[in-house]
Amino acid sequence: MPRFKLTVEYDGSDYVGWQRQDNGESVQGAIEKAILSLTGETVSIRGAGRTDSGVHASGQVMHADLTRPWKPYTLRNALNAHLGLAGERVAILEAEEVSEEFDARFSALRRHYLYRIISRPAPLALEARRAWWVPKPLDHEAMHAGAQRLVGHHDFTTFRSAHCQAASPVRTLDRLDVALVAGVIEIRATAQSFLHNQIRSFAGSLKLVGEGKWTPDDLQAALEARNRKACGPVAPPDGLYFLQVDY
Amino acid sequence: MPRFKLTVEYDGSDYVGWQRQDNGESVQGAIEKAILSLTGETVSIRGAGRTDSGVHASGQVMHADLTRPWKPYTLRNALNAHLGLAGERVAILEAEEVSEEFDARFSALRRHYLYRIISRPAPLALEARRAWWVPKPLDHEAMHAGAQRLVGHHDFTTFRSAHCQAASPVRTLDRLDVALVAGVIEIRATAQSFLHNQIRSFAGSLKLVGEGKWTPDDLQAALEARNRKACGPVAPPDGLYFLQVDY
Repeated sequence: MPRFKLTVEYDGSDYVGWQRQDNGESVQGAIEKAILSLTGETVSIRGAGRTDSGVHASGQVMHADLTRPWKPYTLRNALNAHLGLAGERVAILEAEEVSEEFDARFSALRRHYLYRIISRPAPLALEARRAWWVPKPLDHEAMHAGAQRLVGHHDFTTFRSAHCQAASPVRTLDRLDVALVAGVIEIRATAQSFLHNQIRSFAGSLKLVGEGKWTPDDLQAALEARNRKACGPVAPPDGLYFLQVDY
Repeated sequence: MPRFKLTVEYDGSDYVGWQRQDNGESVQGAIEKAILSLTGETVSIRGAGRTDSGVHASGQVMHADLTRPWKPYTLRNALNAHLGLAGERVAILEAEEVSEEFDARFSALRRHYLYRIISRPAPLALEARRAWWVPKPLDHEAMHAGAQRLVGHHDFTTFRSAHCQAASPVRTLDRLDVALVAGVIEIRATAQSFLHNQIRSFAGSLKLVGEGKWTPDDLQAALEARNRKACGPVAPPDGLYFLQVDY
């Protein structure tokens, strides 16, 4: 039974999130439907990360077990044709046959995310639902300085959702960089794994630093509080992109 | 009667184009409605360029004459509030009071456009309707070399729509550069003014050069033919952005 690794791009705006749910269309469901219509097989796929509703991906990774062998590029093109016919905003970028030991979720060594903020007086027309609009100016250098206080091995209780199902709030954050690139404040985060809402919690708290409401010391105090109530308001999903998974 | 110059951003996907028309919602109509609901005045605005349906703008410029004086930033913010309430994908980036001699269309010295092509096997999910998807690889260096044959003062009959209403097909093209930027082939065009469908005609013909179907010499021969039938297939509107107007 051949196993395939697929790299997936999606516009998360109109989905309930990656994971199949009762209350609407999920990205997982869209891909499983495309596999069913292509192969006649009902499969359950697994993604490297369960992105929330409104969160986008340019490099989500999933695996699927199919009964029939496929040339990887034929599988990619045929799935894209079915996704296109169904009007989905999902595309399979790459397909690869992998061994049965490969697991999109558990084999992941590092996950890379991007959070985009556009800070300007006018609302977003072209970037609506693709970035967080912040009308006030933000000091991205202060945000970067603050972000460095979060890098490393910590108890991130402050920065995870009350609904987070992870057994432990301890994670190692490898990278949290903030930079202004072509008018967009880009927050780039890397870790082996993240807690639920961790990056949106970082982004919401870093915005307070950018506005001058918090100092980098305040951000560190929030981390050390290990208390969800110490977190800034969680940033909206619109700005978040699942970029890449390393194996 | 104060005159205001407004800089406008829009996602053109769901509009019939800039210009007011009977067959659907236009960007011009959306802004005129916002002005009416804000001021109670029925005004006719003028834009620097009449973009087609599906064409986007990050720097369209228009002017409007209002009876009442406004602080420019108040006018901008109030119009954005009305556009937002109406669910429009249009934002006013800047407002400025100008003299009565200023005319958004006739005072323009140079117009700048961008055409975006994404060349990859997979269809576009995140960039759907925001770029032209070309499944085959394109040689952007050959496209740039070909583009240079079009720069200068020429009769552009080959590259204008049969419906173009301009009195003369002669224009001076100041710049037509092609470069690969972060995975996107960007065509940047500058001229005092363009003919109808001129940039989409350039993009469609340059794609043939990128595929190796045309040489730069073929492109020059098409120009010199001064015949609409010598043009390559016109590129879709999705990739075109009206970036900036110089006065």
